[in-house]
Order: sequence, then C-alpha cells, then structure tokens
Amino acid sequence: MPDERIPDGYVHGYSEREHARLLDQATTLTELLHHDTCYPPGASVLEAGCGVGAQTVTLARNSPGARFTSIDVSPRSLEAARARAHAASLKNVTFQAADIFELPFPEESFDHVFVCFVLEHLPRPREALASLRSRLKPAGTLTVIEGDHGSTFFHPDNPDARRAIDCLVTLQARAGGNALIGRQLFPLLAQAGLRDVRVSPRMVYVDSSRPEWVEGFTRNTFTAMVEGVREQALAAGLVDATAWARGVAGLRRAAEPDGVFCYTFFKGVGVR
Amino acid sequence: MPDERIPDGYVHGYSEREHARLLDQATTLTELLHHDTCYPPGASVLEAGCGVGAQTVTLARNSPGARFTSIDVSPRSLEAARARAHAASLKNVTFQAADIFELPFPEESFDHVFVCFVLEHLPRPREALASLRSRLKPAGTLTVIEGDHGSTFFHPDNPDARRAIDCLVTLQARAGGNALIGRQLFPLLAQAGLRDVRVSPRMVYVDSSRPEWVEGFTRNTFTAMVEGVREQALAAGLVDATAWARGVAGLRRAAEPDGVFCYTFFKGVGVR
Repeated sequence: MPDERIPDGYVHGYSEREHARLLDQATTLTELLHHDTCYPPGASVLEAGCGVGAQTVTLARNSPGARFTSIDVSPRSLEAARARAHAASLKNVTFQAADIFELPFPEESFDHVFVCFVLEHLPRPREALASLRSRLKPAGTLTVIEGDHGSTFFHPDNPDARRAIDCLVTLQARAGGNALIGRQLFPLLAQAGLRDVRVSPRMVYVDSSRPEWVEGFTRNTFTAMVEGVREQALAAGLVDATAWARGVAGLRRAAEPDGVFCYTFFKGVGVR
Repeated sequence: MPDERIPDGYVHGYSEREHARLLDQATTLTELLHHDTCYPPGASVLEAGCGVGAQTVTLARNSPGARFTSIDVSPRSLEAARARAHAASLKNVTFQAADIFELPFPEESFDHVFVCFVLEHLPRPREALASLRSRLKPAGTLTVIEGDHGSTFFHPDNPDARRAIDCLVTLQARAGGNALIGRQLFPLLAQAGLRDVRVSPRMVYVDSSRPEWVEGFTRNTFTAMVEGVREQALAAGLVDATAWARGVAGLRRAAEPDGVFCYTFFKGVGVR
C-alpha cells in the first residue's frame, strides 16, 4: 500500500532484525510507557500506526473491556501485527489498513485515540494529530508517546557516539521525520486543537544496578537501533566507517559496569 | 578561609544575585529533590557544603528530630546560612567552617551524610566521597544530589543556546569542576566504596502548562545561571558577545508559551 507520507526510506527498515528489536523494545518499556493508559469497558479506541503490533498487545491487555481498531499503512506490518495478536489470544482488536491522513472513519467515531512511535516518522505531525482529533468524540482523549534522540546522554561521554546518534537524527529528517519530536508534544497537541494537554517525560535511566535495562535497552534497543542505520549513514557520507565503529563502541562502553545511559520518552494526553 | 579545592574562580561567584538565585532554585526544586529524604529522630547528619543554607532549611524541616551539622569552606556562605537558619527558626542545625578533604570529625561520627550541588565544583569528587564515607557509622547512608548541564534540551532547539551552555561546562571544568557530574553519581559512589548504590534521575520538564516552573526554573534558575557567566565566557574568548546574546535569547525563547525546557538532576544514595 503506497503512502507518500511514510517514504520508502523509513529509517528503521522492515527487516526481521528490526522486527525483533521493536518487540524487545516494547517488552522492556511496557511498564514505563503504558502503566497509566487504561480505557474503560465499552470504550472504542483507535490505535493509529500500530506497526507490527508491539504496543497493541499491551494496550489491549491493559484495557480488556475496550474495543481497539488498530490501523497501519503497511500491509506487511499489519500481517505481523495480526499474527502477534492471534498468538496473544487478543479478542478485542480489529486490524485495518488505513492512512492517518485519509482515515476511513467518520468524524467523532472513537472515544479515544492512541499513537505511539508514529509522529516521529511523519512530515506533518500537527496535521496528523488534527486528523486524528477530528475522529474523537467530544471529551475523548488523544494519547501520544514518542522518543527524543536529542535527550540521549551517557557516561563516559563520547563525541563519536554522539555523532553516530546525530546520523540517525539526520537520516530520519531526510526521510521526512523528526527524531527530536518527543520534546515537542506539548505544542504539537495544543496547536492541533487539543485542550488540557499534559505531557510527562519518561526517562530511561540505566546503570549496572539494573542489568535488565542494560541488556534490554542500552544494548538491544538503543545501540541496536543506531547500528541498524550503519549502511545508510555511510552511504549518505555522514560519517566514515572508522568514526562509526568508534561511535558504536562508545555506546557499548556505556553498558559496561561503570557506565550510565539516559534516554527520555514523552507521553502526552490531550482532550477534544 | 582559603581552600585550594574550591578555586577562587568558583564559577557561580558569590554575588547577591547569585545568592538570590540559589534560594529561588532551592524553593522551586525542593519537592522534586528532597521529598524522599527524611532522617529519623535522634539521627546525626552531616551536611557537607551547605553554602548559603538553601538546602539546609528544607533538610532540617523535613527531619525535625534529626541533628544536622552543616559545614562549608566559605565563611561568607556560612554567615548567610546561619542568618537563614535563624530566620527559619531552625533549632536542629549547627554550622561549622570545615573542608570536606580535612574533616574535623573522627571516623564513624555520623549516622548519615548529605551532599547537594557540591561535587560538581570539586576536582576530586571520588576522594571527597571517600572522605565523607569514612565519617559514616556502619550502615549509614550517603546521599548526593547533583545536576548535569549536558542533560539540557529544549524546544525550539537552538545551536547558540547549546553553545552558551557549553561555555558554562567549559568554565566549570577550567575551575576544576564538572558540570556533567550528575550522570556519574552511580560509578562515583560505587568507586568511593559505598554499597547498595541507587541513583534516580529527577527531570525538570517545563512547558507552559506549568507556569511556576517556566518562571522559577527555566527563566530564574537555568537561564539566570547561564547569564551569570557572561563576562567570564567573553573574557575567556569562548564566545563573542553577539553569539552569546543569541544563545541567551534562545534559552528565553524556550520559556515562551509554545516552548519546552528539560533538565535532569540526579540523586544517589549509597550505604557504608
């Protein structure tokens, strides 16, 4: 299903490894990001941009009485999401191929809307939010979760590692996205017409007293994500292979026993 | 009282304005940083580096049955701290001029030690912690709070504003300190011999839904702190006056209604 809003150069790609990374990420971060999202029985919820269903399982399990409509523009992602929902025995989710900018639902269709790790890939996130807002019933909520690569810092600090992260930011920008979007959720939601907007940061703080986060986040989520764009970064001439290797080594260094790694996600909720 | 460990070029200076800024900062951040520090009745607590007493009042009020010994190397700061404690009618604090590296107390003197915004100014923070640890009774706790200027990010992003912050980091490093020390609390405490070290980030997230933080933190704490080193930054040739003005304007821009500002403090606790 072609979609001009998510360019072919979707920065994370659609490989098997990427699929595994997204699932790892969802498992590790579930509590931090989702613990305060619970919809009441009978509520109808649109999950916009469900991807491979990594968040869908958590969403649907945390609100077993709500009915979810989970959409994505990618048929391949939807196929993976359906399989995952089936494996998880979810009964309260309907999957549908759809584009956030051309939603096949009338206005005021849903009680709530949920969007996670989607706006970062869209060239017009404010318009996407306005489109989603229009499908909300009055007093319905719109919840958005996004990361912000510019929130990353670590110990020992390492200029090559920072540069490697900058490559990711640049590639995502060239693909029409914005890897620094987390910090912008408050103005984006307000400008899209939501009211009573509340944004809260969710920092992932990792030191060796939390080995599950060292493994699950620093190594297998963040560093793996950076490593995943190596070829693109080199092909674009953003960095040479030696500096790239030093950068990845710098990120891995932060996962050693005396290392520290910090990254912040943002969660925003607004009301129609 | 001369002290070779805190150079004359203490980056924040000792002006009246700086004094007011430190008090503002303490008031705004009190809950975020101090809410989980409460010592039991009868406990003896060493507050190392009390400065003008900005934290002392909160500490002593939150633990009214504990007895505090608050030390600082600067007689002028101690004088201000005494006046503030007197104004607050504190009865459980004793002030004393003393140097963290030459503590006038025998080993195992205190039940607990508290250090806030001090390590960032010391050339040898690990040794300072080891010195403080030695004054703890067995099973006593050492609590440290520090900021990390490298944790700062904001919207709209602004390279000149980032550069102005970098000036502060550079000046503090030249004065023998480390403005990026917050992220290092875990390894520092562990390497100083503390056990069961637990570090938690305390992010200040500011958007216009929190006007008291826009005023109290973004403008009157952080931007004021950056503005306070203008002359030093220009004299050191780190930046020219035009770029500096753009940088400060960039920080102020983040305090506008559609702006966002983020800064992270770290709090670490270890056990002897």
